[in-house]
Amino acid sequence: MFDPTNEVKVMRDPIHGYIHVDLQVVWDCINAREFQRLRRIQQLGGSFQVYHTAEHSRFSHSIGVYEIIRRMVNEIDGIKNILSDYEKATVMLAGLLHDVGHGPFSHAFEAVSTCKHEEFTCRIIEENTEIHQILIQADPSLPEDIAKIIRHRHPNELLNQMVSGQLDADRMDYLLRDAYFTGTSYGNFDLERILRTIRVVDNKMVVKESGIHTVEDYIMARYHMYWQVYYHPTARSYESILELLFRRMKDLWKSNRKLLDEVVMFHAFLKDTPADVEEHYRLDEAAAFYGFSLLEKSQDPILKDLSSRLLNRHLFAYCTLENEADAQRIKQRLTADGYDIRYYFLSDIASQRPYLPYQGDGGQAIWVLAQDGRIVELSEISLIVKALCESRLQEDHKAFYPDFSD
Amino acid sequence: MFDPTNEVKVMRDPIHGYIHVDLQVVWDCINAREFQRLRRIQQLGGSFQVYHTAEHSRFSHSIGVYEIIRRMVNEIDGIKNILSDYEKATVMLAGLLHDVGHGPFSHAFEAVSTCKHEEFTCRIIEENTEIHQILIQADPSLPEDIAKIIRHRHPNELLNQMVSGQLDADRMDYLLRDAYFTGTSYGNFDLERILRTIRVVDNKMVVKESGIHTVEDYIMARYHMYWQVYYHPTARSYESILELLFRRMKDLWKSNRKLLDEVVMFHAFLKDTPADVEEHYRLDEAAAFYGFSLLEKSQDPILKDLSSRLLNRHLFAYCTLENEADAQRIKQRLTADGYDIRYYFLSDIASQRPYLPYQGDGGQAIWVLAQDGRIVELSEISLIVKALCESRLQEDHKAFYPDFSD
Amino acid sequence: MFDPTNEVKVMRDPIHGYIHVDLQVVWDCINAREFQRLRRIQQLGGSFQVYHTAEHSRFSHSIGVYEIIRRMVNEIDGIKNILSDYEKATVMLAGLLHDVGHGPFSHAFEAVSTCKHEEFTCRIIEENTEIHQILIQADPSLPEDIAKIIRHRHPNELLNQMVSGQLDADRMDYLLRDAYFTGTSYGNFDLERILRTIRVVDNKMVVKESGIHTVEDYIMARYHMYWQVYYHPTARSYESILELLFRRMKDLWKSNRKLLDEVVMFHAFLKDTPADVEEHYRLDEAAAFYGFSLLEKSQDPILKDLSSRLLNRHLFAYCTLENEADAQRIKQRLTADGYDIRYYFLSDIASQRPYLPYQGDGGQAIWVLAQDGRIVELSEISLIVKALCESRLQEDHKAFYPDFSD
Amino acid sequence: MFDPTNEVKVMRDPIHGYIHVDLQVVWDCINAREFQRLRRIQQLGGSFQVYHTAEHSRFSHSIGVYEIIRRMVNEIDGIKNILSDYEKATVMLAGLLHDVGHGPFSHAFEAVSTCKHEEFTCRIIEENTEIHQILIQADPSLPEDIAKIIRHRHPNELLNQMVSGQLDADRMDYLLRDAYFTGTSYGNFDLERILRTIRVVDNKMVVKESGIHTVEDYIMARYHMYWQVYYHPTARSYESILELLFRRMKDLWKSNRKLLDEVVMFHAFLKDTPADVEEHYRLDEAAAFYGFSLLEKSQDPILKDLSSRLLNRHLFAYCTLENEADAQRIKQRLTADGYDIRYYFLSDIASQRPYLPYQGDGGQAIWVLAQDGRIVELSEISLIVKALCESRLQEDHKAFYPDFSD
Repeated sequence: MFDPTNEVKVMRDPIHGYIHVDLQVVWDCINAREFQRLRRIQQLGGSFQVYHTAEHSRFSHSIGVYEIIRRMVNEIDGIKNILSDYEKATVMLAGLLHDVGHGPFSHAFEAVSTCKHEEFTCRIIEENTEIHQILIQADPSLPEDIAKIIRHRHPNELLNQMVSGQLDADRMDYLLRDAYFTGTSYGNFDLERILRTIRVVDNKMVVKESGIHTVEDYIMARYHMYWQVYYHPTARSYESILELLFRRMKDLWKSNRKLLDEVVMFHAFLKDTPADVEEHYRLDEAAAFYGFSLLEKSQDPILKDLSSRLLNRHLFAYCTLENEADAQRIKQRLTADGYDIRYYFLSDIASQRPYLPYQGDGGQAIWVLAQDGRIVELSEISLIVKALCESRLQEDHKAFYPDFSD
Repeated sequence: MFDPTNEVKVMRDPIHGYIHVDLQVVWDCINAREFQRLRRIQQLGGSFQVYHTAEHSRFSHSIGVYEIIRRMVNEIDGIKNILSDYEKATVMLAGLLHDVGHGPFSHAFEAVSTCKHEEFTCRIIEENTEIHQILIQADPSLPEDIAKIIRHRHPNELLNQMVSGQLDADRMDYLLRDAYFTGTSYGNFDLERILRTIRVVDNKMVVKESGIHTVEDYIMARYHMYWQVYYHPTARSYESILELLFRRMKDLWKSNRKLLDEVVMFHAFLKDTPADVEEHYRLDEAAAFYGFSLLEKSQDPILKDLSSRLLNRHLFAYCTLENEADAQRIKQRLTADGYDIRYYFLSDIASQRPYLPYQGDGGQAIWVLAQDGRIVELSEISLIVKALCESRLQEDHKAFYPDFSD
Repeated sequence: MFDPTNEVKVMRDPIHGYIHVDLQVVWDCINAREFQRLRRIQQLGGSFQVYHTAEHSRFSHSIGVYEIIRRMVNEIDGIKNILSDYEKATVMLAGLLHDVGHGPFSHAFEAVSTCKHEEFTCRIIEENTEIHQILIQADPSLPEDIAKIIRHRHPNELLNQMVSGQLDADRMDYLLRDAYFTGTSYGNFDLERILRTIRVVDNKMVVKESGIHTVEDYIMARYHMYWQVYYHPTARSYESILELLFRRMKDLWKSNRKLLDEVVMFHAFLKDTPADVEEHYRLDEAAAFYGFSLLEKSQDPILKDLSSRLLNRHLFAYCTLENEADAQRIKQRLTADGYDIRYYFLSDIASQRPYLPYQGDGGQAIWVLAQDGRIVELSEISLIVKALCESRLQEDHKAFYPDFSD
Repeated sequence: MFDPTNEVKVMRDPIHGYIHVDLQVVWDCINAREFQRLRRIQQLGGSFQVYHTAEHSRFSHSIGVYEIIRRMVNEIDGIKNILSDYEKATVMLAGLLHDVGHGPFSHAFEAVSTCKHEEFTCRIIEENTEIHQILIQADPSLPEDIAKIIRHRHPNELLNQMVSGQLDADRMDYLLRDAYFTGTSYGNFDLERILRTIRVVDNKMVVKESGIHTVEDYIMARYHMYWQVYYHPTARSYESILELLFRRMKDLWKSNRKLLDEVVMFHAFLKDTPADVEEHYRLDEAAAFYGFSLLEKSQDPILKDLSSRLLNRHLFAYCTLENEADAQRIKQRLTADGYDIRYYFLSDIASQRPYLPYQGDGGQAIWVLAQDGRIVELSEISLIVKALCESRLQEDHKAFYPDFSD
């Protein structure tokens, strides 16, 4: 139904060996400008300040997610035989495009932006963009159906689950990929074996009981990657400065806009009306970094200092906060030293549960096909996961601020 | 003599496991702004257009070169016992800083620039920069001595050879690193074993005869990386467009400068007088990409088209040129189609010898310590290398130009 | 004090890169006949019946343990500076020799033998063997001091802990090695980082708090390797047949000894008096397999059948036992089918705790050096480990017996 | 046509990820006693004396060869579409069984045996064995057709080429596997890419020109593995002793047979009439090693000494022979020291050409499908391979003998 490529296109990839593309619509989307832009957006926010080789882009990750879904629809019998060719193409494209709306610096930028990246992703798919043209030319209903999956509201729950669930292509790719590019071993798990043990029961992905050790390993990989990479305090220190710099810009936009004249790349995200997709296209990390290099010469000392810190790695110090008094003490000291604490202090709670057994929220639990044929929730059958679920939430409450000795 | 760090600093690295820093002057240089800038310069030019994960920076490579030299001065007895602490620090810093003057896009940019990256590297070390301040504070003669190594003119030939020779830390790091980040296996060789078989005889690095198989493997790794990664026609296609875009800018600078008003980041490299180190600092790849995104809206159709091609991967087609008539035919066709061939045609000869046995040019041959104690040039003792040296030069002459069907 | 080797000997090893030997006494022990015998004893019992490449020997593992200890005494400051050269050599030799008394087939053989492998290890070190001669020639007190460590009774608790504790060189090597040779990823953890975070406080190895994620990973690796490799039911099925075959031989030794005339290699382990070290030397896995091939032609149908099953992989079926009635049902069926259940039925409970926090039993807990300087037991500081400790013991009770359809 | 297994069987393998078995006849052959015997035959002869972890068996290698052929018949379009199901099964089985006739210690044993391993392989397939029964039950013509492939005489040349040619499944598996288990990197090449670039033209496997770099890499891998692993002098020293020990046994068989009474496992190979398949089955490496341990107590001092050297790694010294006079000098010295040079001196020439371009001998050249559609022999198109072919044959002539200082 969809045109095949004239021969199977392959792209070498350290995680998957090769990425295989055999549908023209997929190949065209990869070569569309909104997708090529992802080469200029890094996958991780501040983690490259800790793991210097974590410089990989969302472009790589996105085609990795596509590849895992491609394998799911080709190799897992229960999926292969149930889905139509149209559904297969739709879910592969949803995997490919799920991050196309991402702004720079992952979540730090989103924290100050009025528009979430999932929303931009859907707009790029549904509004007048190169990708949109490619999709409707292949099939007029593709944009809407892909966007349904991105919004996790496709009537075929299986499709939503493949892209975004507890055992989805997105997480599986990013854990393996981030482990490879950070050079750590924490994120490794046996993708081959997970794919081999997935079954489909009642239109839901489940894992055969013989595969639960691999799933336990995957959950631990997630847990370790969060604390060792994503929530590493040095990464969060960098992201704190990013957030404070954007906060300063937002405040100046209201009070002293001409200080921001030069940094046109940020304007669309400072004004009250939402940015459009073309403005979004322009704000990649190259633009942001160039913007910082302009701000480094700003007449506003706060813009100048914070942007210089980002460019030249003068990061904030940090400490664990036990209580509100700890925070107060730091703020007083900062104020005494002349810092404006609105832009020189950020407190942040990182928290993570390795796995949530809750069953109500749209397939967020992992289900196991037990040897006796029953479908049970993972924590009922895995001692390890049960133990993790019963442990209290792990939290890390930290304050980030300039080193007093600076 | 040089201050140690208060504890050994380590940085996780996929190639070397950990990078170890135990001198404060090294640590300070890594954290200097001119060195942090290398995070915004990719290691490879156009290769990421073929190998999408080849997105690693010169920052990573530079600390990798430092690490190999650190191991050489600590683990190879002949080096460890001969060099003074000052010489050890000098050569480690030379390895660390050898690429600090690199501009964006590797050699494509250099092709149109009046100033070579080695020269900028020396200027950053010797002129008034953060790195210069750090160095002279540690020892006033450091900048000059480091620059001598960079220029390959240090009186102690061994130091030059460690940073840049036929078996140097620079090449050893980039082959392994580029192999890892492209996800190919071509560039792999056994670094551990090479380090174990290096000896120093007459102040020259030589390899024990028992290690020549590993050296053969290293030379083949180089050969394959050149043809499969660095000289891949798709990478060269991208670099051709870069070169033609800069050529167009240089011409417009003379004829119609106001078309370039907006792209201030490029001005210093278009004017006749050499750029200064601060202008050089500002021109990283983020600035260049942002510049391209401005040019994408230029009123000059050539700037507009070429910059859009770079951002959105509309690459040039290519074909092998057998003779001048081939080139003429293509140019005629392009002209007929309305293309200005000054900016839409580039012919380029890639050529590479895996190894040069010539002995005159400053230690560029690889020397082997034979079992009988003689020092012989590698191709005299290795059948494989001898065969490679005797084979004619491998050349690839290609033309790059817009696909006629565009 | 101990003679160095005339140059550092190195052995290529997939786990450690190279094994380094720089003491002559270590090199001589490796080349002693009792140590070379370990090449003919596989590291794992029945696991090669599941993971066909798990064919590695205790020889490889033993030099791997030595290498980890060599690194501990050279790279961990707290150990390097505290131990004397004599103690360093002693603990390295203890690591090297800790398994030298192993019989064939790991624990299956031991189950029917009167003599435990630790005991044979000590006898080989202390009685008149090649290894003993080498040791006393180096220092007359070495055998006794090494044996003390093997018996976990050396007065310097640190030495015991390095060879055998909760975070010891033995386990660290076998997890990594067994993972590599089975081709699974379960057993991987970051050895480099663990070695970097070990400190010595009050003559006890502790881990810096910043390293606990790596330790959690190590504990999970252990957990997974136990259930996926060591306790895999197919491996246990093979080991069950081994145990039943030896049981049959023991019984025939009393009732009808001449049926065992040909298999002289087993005699020393069937008679009442303990085997001597020379008899032990002779019973390697080559001898055992050759013995099985002789038994395959035995006139006793049980010896004949069980040995043939081992050689030709006709393994027993297995099922989980919920209660005694399950076992009874199987036994009745077997009896009805004509099987002698003394030799055709084995029930076996595999159980494993990933980690034991008990503090009384000679340093078996893992201790953490918290950021505030306190020394705390791992499960007090790691939510993951705490959760594992509180979960009930994981057990797998299985019966092994001939497939009824055979 | 052939029965499928009731579900796809998979076996974890470090080289191929998983081995997939979906035909019952393949699964049954793997579980046949003659195939299980391969677990007791190591893949490499004496190389484990250099690379201590090279302890992998021909069992693993054989299923690896099967897996590569399985992928060839499923993934290479030109093969997939041409071969019948019967031919596919035949060639997969030929790959699986090609080494089933191997004796212990690879080629050392064969050097003194009257019967070559290929011949035993064919006999096991064609005579009355468990494997033979399995094959004829699946299809009566299978044994003959498989044997034709093993003998390289199948009328469909493509089938012969897949199992044994210049770019065959056998070599591709053993290079990768031996590299993995020795822990060296020499043998690595990009199997995925080779499989992707193979085409079938005129019923002959050829490689697309775009894949020749990978083939060059494969040829270099072969070259390095030969010199660094297979022909390592320490491995050859061990194999020399093996050969001399068998020579001694053969001589004693004629002159003083009762000295060999105990080592019944060797008898069938010492007598004049060829061994039968059952005798061959019994002589695995377990039997051989047990035999050596019996000979270690022999009254013949030569048997006693040589077997002890094998068991306990008292290897021969070696030196390079430049001419006959070198050999004479050594022999005189040995004789003077009381050695019987018939059993204490072996000279051996190792020689290897990385690649033979000869075109006459049954498809032994590698053919390339050039971009212009022509089929050319590899050395005509690859400068590297051409250079290798023109270099003189690399030879290593060595003598092996007891260390004079012993």
